[in-house]
Amino acid sequence: MGSVASTLAKLPFEPMIDVYSIVPAGGSGTRLWPLSRDARPKFLLDLEGTGLSLLQSTYQRLLPLSGHEKVMIVTGRAHVDAVKAQLPGISDHNIVAEPSPKESMAAIGLAAMLFHERDPDAVIASFAADHVIATTDNVFASAVASAVAAARQSNGLVTIGIEPDEPSTAFGYIHLGKPEEIESDAETFARFGLTRISACQVQRFKEKPQVEEVKELLATGEYCWNAGMFVTRASVLLHLLQDTCPLLFSGLKKIAADWSSAHRQEVLASVWPHLPKISIDHAIAEPAATQGQMLVIKALLEWKDVGDYAALCEMAGPHLNPGDNQTPAKKVKVMGEAKLVFVQDGSGLFVTSSGRPIVALGIEDLVVVDTPDALLITLASRSQDIKSIVGVCKEAIPYLQ
Amino acid sequence: MGSVASTLAKLPFEPMIDVYSIVPAGGSGTRLWPLSRDARPKFLLDLEGTGLSLLQSTYQRLLPLSGHEKVMIVTGRAHVDAVKAQLPGISDHNIVAEPSPKESMAAIGLAAMLFHERDPDAVIASFAADHVIATTDNVFASAVASAVAAARQSNGLVTIGIEPDEPSTAFGYIHLGKPEEIESDAETFARFGLTRISACQVQRFKEKPQVEEVKELLATGEYCWNAGMFVTRASVLLHLLQDTCPLLFSGLKKIAADWSSAHRQEVLASVWPHLPKISIDHAIAEPAATQGQMLVIKALLEWKDVGDYAALCEMAGPHLNPGDNQTPAKKVKVMGEAKLVFVQDGSGLFVTSSGRPIVALGIEDLVVVDTPDALLITLASRSQDIKSIVGVCKEAIPYLQ
Repeated sequence: MGSVASTLAKLPFEPMIDVYSIVPAGGSGTRLWPLSRDARPKFLLDLEGTGLSLLQSTYQRLLPLSGHEKVMIVTGRAHVDAVKAQLPGISDHNIVAEPSPKESMAAIGLAAMLFHERDPDAVIASFAADHVIATTDNVFASAVASAVAAARQSNGLVTIGIEPDEPSTAFGYIHLGKPEEIESDAETFARFGLTRISACQVQRFKEKPQVEEVKELLATGEYCWNAGMFVTRASVLLHLLQDTCPLLFSGLKKIAADWSSAHRQEVLASVWPHLPKISIDHAIAEPAATQGQMLVIKALLEWKDVGDYAALCEMAGPHLNPGDNQTPAKKVKVMGEAKLVFVQDGSGLFVTSSGRPIVALGIEDLVVVDTPDALLITLASRSQDIKSIVGVCKEAIPYLQ
Repeated sequence: MGSVASTLAKLPFEPMIDVYSIVPAGGSGTRLWPLSRDARPKFLLDLEGTGLSLLQSTYQRLLPLSGHEKVMIVTGRAHVDAVKAQLPGISDHNIVAEPSPKESMAAIGLAAMLFHERDPDAVIASFAADHVIATTDNVFASAVASAVAAARQSNGLVTIGIEPDEPSTAFGYIHLGKPEEIESDAETFARFGLTRISACQVQRFKEKPQVEEVKELLATGEYCWNAGMFVTRASVLLHLLQDTCPLLFSGLKKIAADWSSAHRQEVLASVWPHLPKISIDHAIAEPAATQGQMLVIKALLEWKDVGDYAALCEMAGPHLNPGDNQTPAKKVKVMGEAKLVFVQDGSGLFVTSSGRPIVALGIEDLVVVDTPDALLITLASRSQDIKSIVGVCKEAIPYLQ
């Protein structure tokens, strides 16, 4: 974690954007079993091979924007210690521990209330803990700044949509509506090198489409990827929530009211178990879009949701078998030590987290995930389908949960 | 090894056949890496799942025929301790330790000389240490008795050929020549329930054929599998060897002369390294066949040379994933614990000698060999081809030899 520490040290005196960041860190990433487990969810893993977990990369990306005091992580109780270990120096009041998983709306709603109490005029932005975003340029920061300006101007919900660079069926899509020009102060324009900020109305959200449909959608030029990034005034979010999910709203209200009191755990214990489980998309984003209260800022981001092994396979390149400089395998991605992987007449993804050599012969797009206590073997094309057989395995061998 | 011990205890007072058995136990079984290693060759492995290694099964099969004092194992120096551990009670003078591998002729030739010194009229029979033969009936014993009778009568070389039950390309074939009736004593006929013993001349040996050719061979009815079993008078073998490989013969002669003296190791050290490397097939069997001095006894044996993972795959049957009684995988063979193997939309061979669960999705005829220090993944159809990539791996990581 020297990296996050050094980012903190290099922080400008002022954060770049007046925005409160919320990072819901939940979900175990079932499609990445046996790398991800209930006790070692995807966001705690280093899937990029950078030495940082997805959560650490996310935190490091948000620190310069919001500043140390305005980034809040919402995670399961079981993961609080691991999160603190990965993010040393994070303030206790910026980690919210959920007693049990309730999907994203409860997590983001509670964080929004806590930030709203700190600052009634707060603009909040929520970002998944386990997405990969390139930050070599300032495209991400500029997109967030634009979305914050749009949220202030519109008093609605704003999302950052990603320009698709391939017809993926792994993501949901956003259907763009009519454009809207966003005003902002000269300083923001100057800092992010913007000449104008263009938003669009969100016509509607479209769940993961089938492969035939995707190409039609993209041909219209009217669709971008839904990356699950939401920006809005905290007060607007809470109003929307009160309208669409009054039970969830009132439950969170009770919890937030006693958050800083001695009764926090008591109230959590009595209220949390009864909160409805619902995602932020279903709870407020889709209703807001239907009511014309939702804007999207399109961004040309290098963004990835590494949701399954096929996504990791896509990073494959030439691989020289150790000790053999003659005949490289064409398409191999190794997570772990490349010097442990020997491939002939084949390609694919090899995870060597058990430290044992892997010899693979004759299978294309093979996925081998070798961990100290379990082994998964499939094809990249089947990596969206592992849930069922992995479920049978976890049921039979509970320590593999 | 309770099993070999109990076979010994149940031995009839007299061995069934007056024959000296030789078991050359060499060769590491490269095509079964990483199960087999230089230090843990194929013959020491339990590939049948019976609780006995191939060597133990071979020894147990030969004890009732030859008796305890007339079975000799020839193996590499490095394996002597392992062989003794697997065959408790074997006499030291029935284990011959080769200083280095020299292929089968040196091993069998030396054993033949040692037996010939014990008994100038000895008939010897050599059997691979790593073949699988069913012994539920007395077909094997009866075939050996017939071959011994043929060897005494013909004063030539005799082999036991296996009636093929499929067009395999993994074995060599024997082209049968004209039939020859073999005499034997009434007691032998009675003991093995034989009414007559028929042998054939061996016209010629045919190396592993291509798949198109095999069907033509089998259609003629004139071919059987070469199982590498040779039966002959020791004196005949030594004469043949002297004719065809005089250097090997004279080298072995020097070694045998000093075998029981204080100079055994000294002579071995000076002579053994210079012995020619040659198989018994090339050294004497093929020349004998050419000269019309070779007979074959055809046997309807259940015989297998488990030479690669495809051979183990053939034993596949239905497999219920642990905890799921609904949807059996159709064609799965597990070596190790079946309760560690979870297969969906696939089939194949799974070796679980690391004790870790294996989840496999979407690959037919998959071969997964999971050992504590190395992992092999291939397809059954490619299991004859693993030598090259395994070689690269062993070169790079010497402890995997």
